[in-house]
Amino acid sequence: MTKLLQHIDSPKDLRTLAKEDLPFLAKELREFIIQIVATKEGHLGASLGVVELTIALHYVFNTPEDLLIWDVGHQAYVHKILTERKSQFDTNRQLDGLSGFPKRDESKYDAFGVGHSSTSISAALGMAIASKLKGDFKKQHIAVIGDASIASGMAFEGLNHAGVTDTNLLVILNDNAIGIDPSVGALKMYLTNVKKGTQKQDNIFEALNFNYSGPIDGHDLPKVISELERLKTIPGPKFLHLITTKGKGLKQAELDQVKYHAPGKFNALTGDLFEKSKTVVPPKFQDVFGHTIVELAKTNEKIIGITPAMPTGSSLKYMMKAFPERAFDVGIAEQHAVTLSAGLATQGFIPFCNIYSTFLQRAYDQIIHDVCLQNLPVIFCLDRAGLVGEDGATHQGVFDLAFLRCIPNLIIFAPRNETELRNIMFTAQMGLDHPIAIRYPRGRGRELDWKQPFSTLEIGKGEPLKTGAKIAILSIGTMAYNVEDALNLLTLEQQNDIAVFNMRFIKPLDEILLHSVLSTYSKVFTIEDGTVIGGFGSAVITFASNHQYNTNIETLGIPDTFIEHGSVTQLQKSLGLDPESLAALFLKAL
Amino acid sequence: MTKLLQHIDSPKDLRTLAKEDLPFLAKELREFIIQIVATKEGHLGASLGVVELTIALHYVFNTPEDLLIWDVGHQAYVHKILTERKSQFDTNRQLDGLSGFPKRDESKYDAFGVGHSSTSISAALGMAIASKLKGDFKKQHIAVIGDASIASGMAFEGLNHAGVTDTNLLVILNDNAIGIDPSVGALKMYLTNVKKGTQKQDNIFEALNFNYSGPIDGHDLPKVISELERLKTIPGPKFLHLITTKGKGLKQAELDQVKYHAPGKFNALTGDLFEKSKTVVPPKFQDVFGHTIVELAKTNEKIIGITPAMPTGSSLKYMMKAFPERAFDVGIAEQHAVTLSAGLATQGFIPFCNIYSTFLQRAYDQIIHDVCLQNLPVIFCLDRAGLVGEDGATHQGVFDLAFLRCIPNLIIFAPRNETELRNIMFTAQMGLDHPIAIRYPRGRGRELDWKQPFSTLEIGKGEPLKTGAKIAILSIGTMAYNVEDALNLLTLEQQNDIAVFNMRFIKPLDEILLHSVLSTYSKVFTIEDGTVIGGFGSAVITFASNHQYNTNIETLGIPDTFIEHGSVTQLQKSLGLDPESLAALFLKAL
Repeated sequence: MTKLLQHIDSPKDLRTLAKEDLPFLAKELREFIIQIVATKEGHLGASLGVVELTIALHYVFNTPEDLLIWDVGHQAYVHKILTERKSQFDTNRQLDGLSGFPKRDESKYDAFGVGHSSTSISAALGMAIASKLKGDFKKQHIAVIGDASIASGMAFEGLNHAGVTDTNLLVILNDNAIGIDPSVGALKMYLTNVKKGTQKQDNIFEALNFNYSGPIDGHDLPKVISELERLKTIPGPKFLHLITTKGKGLKQAELDQVKYHAPGKFNALTGDLFEKSKTVVPPKFQDVFGHTIVELAKTNEKIIGITPAMPTGSSLKYMMKAFPERAFDVGIAEQHAVTLSAGLATQGFIPFCNIYSTFLQRAYDQIIHDVCLQNLPVIFCLDRAGLVGEDGATHQGVFDLAFLRCIPNLIIFAPRNETELRNIMFTAQMGLDHPIAIRYPRGRGRELDWKQPFSTLEIGKGEPLKTGAKIAILSIGTMAYNVEDALNLLTLEQQNDIAVFNMRFIKPLDEILLHSVLSTYSKVFTIEDGTVIGGFGSAVITFASNHQYNTNIETLGIPDTFIEHGSVTQLQKSLGLDPESLAALFLKAL
Repeated sequence: MTKLLQHIDSPKDLRTLAKEDLPFLAKELREFIIQIVATKEGHLGASLGVVELTIALHYVFNTPEDLLIWDVGHQAYVHKILTERKSQFDTNRQLDGLSGFPKRDESKYDAFGVGHSSTSISAALGMAIASKLKGDFKKQHIAVIGDASIASGMAFEGLNHAGVTDTNLLVILNDNAIGIDPSVGALKMYLTNVKKGTQKQDNIFEALNFNYSGPIDGHDLPKVISELERLKTIPGPKFLHLITTKGKGLKQAELDQVKYHAPGKFNALTGDLFEKSKTVVPPKFQDVFGHTIVELAKTNEKIIGITPAMPTGSSLKYMMKAFPERAFDVGIAEQHAVTLSAGLATQGFIPFCNIYSTFLQRAYDQIIHDVCLQNLPVIFCLDRAGLVGEDGATHQGVFDLAFLRCIPNLIIFAPRNETELRNIMFTAQMGLDHPIAIRYPRGRGRELDWKQPFSTLEIGKGEPLKTGAKIAILSIGTMAYNVEDALNLLTLEQQNDIAVFNMRFIKPLDEILLHSVLSTYSKVFTIEDGTVIGGFGSAVITFASNHQYNTNIETLGIPDTFIEHGSVTQLQKSLGLDPESLAALFLKAL
């Protein structure tokens, strides 16, 4: 470890440094982060872009008494390192290690847990109101938010309220013109004009009653420090517009900001990404979606693709390239994405609205009120459903089956492999009488030869995968992989006792199949990568109860607790959903 | 019926009138609406405020080819009358009658179903994109949105996207400075300054890349018509700022805009509200909440009240009056309301966040991600849970139990009467280790003498209401009233066979009580005013299955379909939840 950083464990230590030393510390921090992320993986670009800002904030403000909230939290690595977590930083995003996001349980310096975007202004305002009510007019409340996040509706709601309060709130816009993908929308265009000086300063944020300052260079440490010192003395809601560069200080990360958002392992010395292995591997489900929608869109001109700010993550980028007129990145705006899809569907178009399972929680009302109530045939593709791994508790896509299953008119499907994802997309775009939610996990399937000709799937029809004499397993989605692996750990004789069904549809249930299974087997397992409360297993139990089957049904899935970060394999193990645990369970039941 | 209106059934008829006649038509329309709403009840003020605008829109634009979307839809009565529904207008909001909101099933002139706020821009933009893709550059797409609704985050998301498209979209801001209650927030302040001329025209909407015009007087028919004709010829996203008066044309409605939003029956000739009956009636649950929070706030200075734009509807207005520093109307901003509450809770405050059950769908992610994941003890009061009656499918509060039950850390409670509502509020503010959702219905309880001293309720503990020999009924919330009434239809002997339990908590379940019931009775009914899928009954079935009880359990509640409008009594009857149906069901089971 280098000279300055090795003596700094907390903001208190930081504040002992002379201002002139801080740029050197910035350099050391960048090296430290690059060194660790290069080998341990994680989010890189965002934190490199706020090294100076983070130093300045902890230098000027009296954290943790002053409350600092990082919107989303990808950019909080510097913050973590400077706030008593330097020595643990190499456990970032690992099981039992540091969370990849600020987290109240982890540190008193993490004033608010984050992960999803655009919450920081509301949370900071709540804290600022609290201080005011306590008569504490000295305490500072700071929300640091990016230009992609501030364009989301929730951030606007926070600004709109804050502007009519006299609370001690400072909103810092970290404007780097990019979220995970480049920012979009009219507000982004506006901010660009402000930066270029072609838009007057008498601006949106002043119109919302904030004391606006900026734009200033967010990498100019002395300037940032003096501006924060000035703002500290000004009462009421304040807005500071900072211009930064995502990936700052690592040439490759500055040049390819999308790839270096979370680059995986790379060469810490050169900054170069490691060349991809030449081994042919099965595709990511994301890419199956991305290539299949392009394939379908070629013959069906009614198909539209919509993503709220995840063109790369969802692989809709392929369609945006192939059919730029028919594919839309609407920014971090899940609510808008869903109702826009509904509007398109009223005019006979076939919108594929691709949203991460965890972010669909942001558009729950729009699914009910705008899509399902009007029974509009929108096709929801829910990416990163189930356990997502290292992103942790804020990002697990485990509630979708439960919160969607109670909505009338909605079909819910989970493909067990790449082929089924392709075929349900094919089936859906031919025209269903209902909206459908297709949920699939993060990561890779197992089919090398996945690009097969399409065939249609019958709605509400499951599939027997394997006959068996004694017990039946009803599986949803890619949990079929785990079941398959579990069975492979058993003897052939044991395997012969176990029937396996791929249920495909959470809704409508395959009632014929269920009647058959429940009247044949006295022991049934259901398995899903979602909450057991209200999910698929719950549906099976209710069906059995309603039809007075006394079958013993054991529901496997996510228990009633938030699941922290770790690899998917580790998390499955801890939940008893890994092949070994399953095999033991099946064996016990035989 | 008067001279002009009697010849007008559709916009086609309207367009045959000379411009000079239109003000007379406006007068007739106001009289027609007042006449009917005075006796049939409904929303009054909003529609009176847009008589001229509605005439102008259908006069200038080629509806239904041109697509017209009314945000929320309270203001769409004139639209309904002019679009082939004049003769049915007296069935408004009644069972099998017209819906109180625009509805696609009801008329080709209703381009998009509405009810919840701030969806119109997204939906209209979807339609406008569809037209562009079809090569139709003539079709017009118009969203009419109020100043309260446009301040909601979702509307901002729509504007932010629309501003970077070249679609043929016209957003009309119907600025009357009030939603149901007076509008709030920085944007409202800004709009007021624009109206006063103290804010430059170079404004927020221009910054978002809209072609802005206005503000103009929305009651000046010739001016509105000529402006719409001008805008019709301008390509790209346009924004027209209209100033109107809610309740226009009825003096009392203009003077007391909150009361005349939906005034109930009134004297159509004078406009006066009928005097309230002197009979003492039990309180509305809303008022129990409103008065109780004030009572508690007097002794517990940590209590904060928060409502997203429903101070009157929720009765938080009492606290806003008693403790203006500690009660907040944050506008139509459910997402912000929840995360603001979370921020307050981190600082030791006790926020009562009061949101209608159906509108909580707008803040689903914030409940999960900002409150429950961090296990912050926010107290959610879910007003208008269960069937809401005349407001219909968009407003029924029937999904909450299902969508909340899958969230870890959350306690869910439904009071069976006023006393229980008071006592759970008392219990919760004393400090729970978890967030809690308290859900109660629209309308009145049955206790005249409801203001009793507080007592605490044990978390997770149900209550036996009545012993019985043969069957058990597990009831949630005010469904206990229906059960009570059903039992009163039976003979004493029959009653003696029926045990009744008030379960109180949907989560955590009273497992001791359930073990006792399930091991004692072979037939159990659960009853709830929520979806049976994923709700309370589902929880009981799962519990029974997990513990291998073979008890026959019948779950009564809302089936898997959207429930249209009608009185609560009528709807309950159609769903078999009325006392007569229940009595027959119980009798059959005996």
